[in-house]
Amino acid sequence: MPATPLTRAACAELDAADPLAGFRDEFALPEGVVYLDGNSLGALPKATPGRVAELIEKEWGHGLIGSWNDAGWWDKPRTLGAKLAPLVGAAPHEVVVGDGTSANLFKTLVAALRLNPDRRMVVGEAGNFSTDLYITQGVVELFEGAGQRLVDPDDTDGLEAALAPGDAAVVLLSHVDYRTGALRDMAAVTELAHRHGALVVWDLCHSVGALPIELSGCGADFAVGCTYKYLNAGPGAPAFTYAAERHHATARQPLTGWHGHARPFDFTGDYEPAQGADRFLSGSQPLIAAAALEASLELWGRADLKLVREKSLALTDLFIELTAPAGLELVTPREAGRRGSQVSLRHPDGYAMVQALIARGVIGDFRAPDVLRFGFTPLYLRHVDVHDAATALTEIVRTGEWRDPRFAERARVT
Amino acid sequence: MPATPLTRAACAELDAADPLAGFRDEFALPEGVVYLDGNSLGALPKATPGRVAELIEKEWGHGLIGSWNDAGWWDKPRTLGAKLAPLVGAAPHEVVVGDGTSANLFKTLVAALRLNPDRRMVVGEAGNFSTDLYITQGVVELFEGAGQRLVDPDDTDGLEAALAPGDAAVVLLSHVDYRTGALRDMAAVTELAHRHGALVVWDLCHSVGALPIELSGCGADFAVGCTYKYLNAGPGAPAFTYAAERHHATARQPLTGWHGHARPFDFTGDYEPAQGADRFLSGSQPLIAAAALEASLELWGRADLKLVREKSLALTDLFIELTAPAGLELVTPREAGRRGSQVSLRHPDGYAMVQALIARGVIGDFRAPDVLRFGFTPLYLRHVDVHDAATALTEIVRTGEWRDPRFAERARVT
Repeated sequence: MPATPLTRAACAELDAADPLAGFRDEFALPEGVVYLDGNSLGALPKATPGRVAELIEKEWGHGLIGSWNDAGWWDKPRTLGAKLAPLVGAAPHEVVVGDGTSANLFKTLVAALRLNPDRRMVVGEAGNFSTDLYITQGVVELFEGAGQRLVDPDDTDGLEAALAPGDAAVVLLSHVDYRTGALRDMAAVTELAHRHGALVVWDLCHSVGALPIELSGCGADFAVGCTYKYLNAGPGAPAFTYAAERHHATARQPLTGWHGHARPFDFTGDYEPAQGADRFLSGSQPLIAAAALEASLELWGRADLKLVREKSLALTDLFIELTAPAGLELVTPREAGRRGSQVSLRHPDGYAMVQALIARGVIGDFRAPDVLRFGFTPLYLRHVDVHDAATALTEIVRTGEWRDPRFAERARVT
Repeated sequence: MPATPLTRAACAELDAADPLAGFRDEFALPEGVVYLDGNSLGALPKATPGRVAELIEKEWGHGLIGSWNDAGWWDKPRTLGAKLAPLVGAAPHEVVVGDGTSANLFKTLVAALRLNPDRRMVVGEAGNFSTDLYITQGVVELFEGAGQRLVDPDDTDGLEAALAPGDAAVVLLSHVDYRTGALRDMAAVTELAHRHGALVVWDLCHSVGALPIELSGCGADFAVGCTYKYLNAGPGAPAFTYAAERHHATARQPLTGWHGHARPFDFTGDYEPAQGADRFLSGSQPLIAAAALEASLELWGRADLKLVREKSLALTDLFIELTAPAGLELVTPREAGRRGSQVSLRHPDGYAMVQALIARGVIGDFRAPDVLRFGFTPLYLRHVDVHDAATALTEIVRTGEWRDPRFAERARVT
């Protein structure tokens, strides 16, 4: 672990030497805000409004229906997928953009169950984000004899025990735990699952854009992820699906819309899946939203993920060190290799503490029942921002500022 | 049928007296273009770029994560659904906006099969848009013993014969045929299906915004539709789902993502559907695209659908009359009550004729193998536009202008 700089001046020196420092100016950040919620909704790239306006006014308004050909609209799920592929360690033709994470989980889980027809169990994680659990319930209900077995994926023995019966068709795990920030060993877990005859679906929502990912290198089967967190594509932006090339000819997903057809413009009566990852497509995609993703992927195409990961670990280390005096329980693994790009702290009054921080212009979030969650986005966060945020949290806890009744009032969406 | 005005001057007089004339100025239409493809991709409302920019720069860029509460993002599927409801004759709480038409067909068909568990047959139409046929195939594959029986819905006896065996769980029909423009009798077909114990899912893609729709009045069970055709919400804009209130407590769709949960922010491990049409929601929606829908629904909230229907019939009548000398076969029903808002003509060289028209600034489209398709959007089309388009087509056919080899070259997306 590097020596942690504890003064603001030392932080400013690190910022001056930061090879990623130039990216900050490419984001439209509100004045006086330290934004530590980019793991939930990434900040707005300055290039995005212009790209979206171009699509709306030029491609749609002027080009009208012709833009399906002339502006490359029809191929956007593939061209955007190819641009996203390097961020997840995939070949360009293994990723398509479209639909939401929930729908893509549904498609990949059904495909995995069909590729492993003698097995009916989905091994999931008890603490996974709720939509992963719910979608799995929706899937297993459609297959006779199917079920969900929940484990703690950070307990390797427990995971192996869940696979030992030999009935697991597929393992669905989040690469980074949305609550704790724990990073799973993709290579080891994938190898373990394969050794026990199960396929693996990785949920990359909390890791894509936060660290280098090697789906192909790890032998992963399928993956899904969103683009509105670290990838900065805007609220509810289109999600993506990764399908390893070896499954392209045989994977069959159930949302068999016309965009996934081998020859969509033949308008044949019978569904025949396309010969690639695009068999995971269904229908038309919201292209105005896709234009925002296009703008942010252009930016990500210039970012070195190794530098992103190094800075992410430096920022999270710094925050952990600087907030230690506050005395909150650290939930996130202290070991760098087991940590994503967030720091989670635990306190029964965490909700009010997060509200008090927001009142000071430091935006983090809260996850029930007691987790204060802070995301670190190396493209637009500086070491001095982390210093200021940590100082604010420490002061809020020390002074009891969070006890003000106005900080107890719960918002509907947390 | 009204007397058809055949001179351009008479058309200009009709435009001067048109109560919908003021809407044309609310659209950004390219100079020198007569756009007869609004049934495929509606034109751009002038208010849209501003509303989208507001969402991006103010709500996302400045409001950041707080906009899930402060800008009403979380409720958009419901608030937009409520604004759309009057266009389909539904109560505000019976419509939600989200996902695409294909996904929503999947959800409603599965829900219908589950509501009718002793029956396994889906009655569809042989000539339906391909995604309706493909999604049905994807659905029936998930239910043992299920199948698809295809009929011609414009043949009432044939439809009744398909229902007679008593094994039909659900009937899926397009309200307006995308190729012929034939309008189906929603009340009569729904009554017929119910009499035979089947539920009905209506695909409204080619009727919503083209004519008044009375889902509740007709006793429909479910409906889906897109918003990028007559509703002008932009390429690939979010679709919608209608679920009749009587099914809210019992309908179970399979894409059980967290946005359809009764208490999504409790993050419970078990899926429990919301108590309304929002149980048809799955995950986060692309809010940048939803902002464009918001702008166009504001405009539609001021449009009288009875006037829209009257003008639609007048424009389609006019086009049929004026293009009669061209001698192409009329595919669309001549009877007003059986016609949507498009006119389809048939010719073996239809593709080249459509290209020759586009070269003259008249944009229609072509549907294989031989259909020239022209959509009429009463909010931004004038009688003189229809006159000019019909004149162009008649001249192109008379002079053989379409035989120029450059008009034979096929675009990838048709």
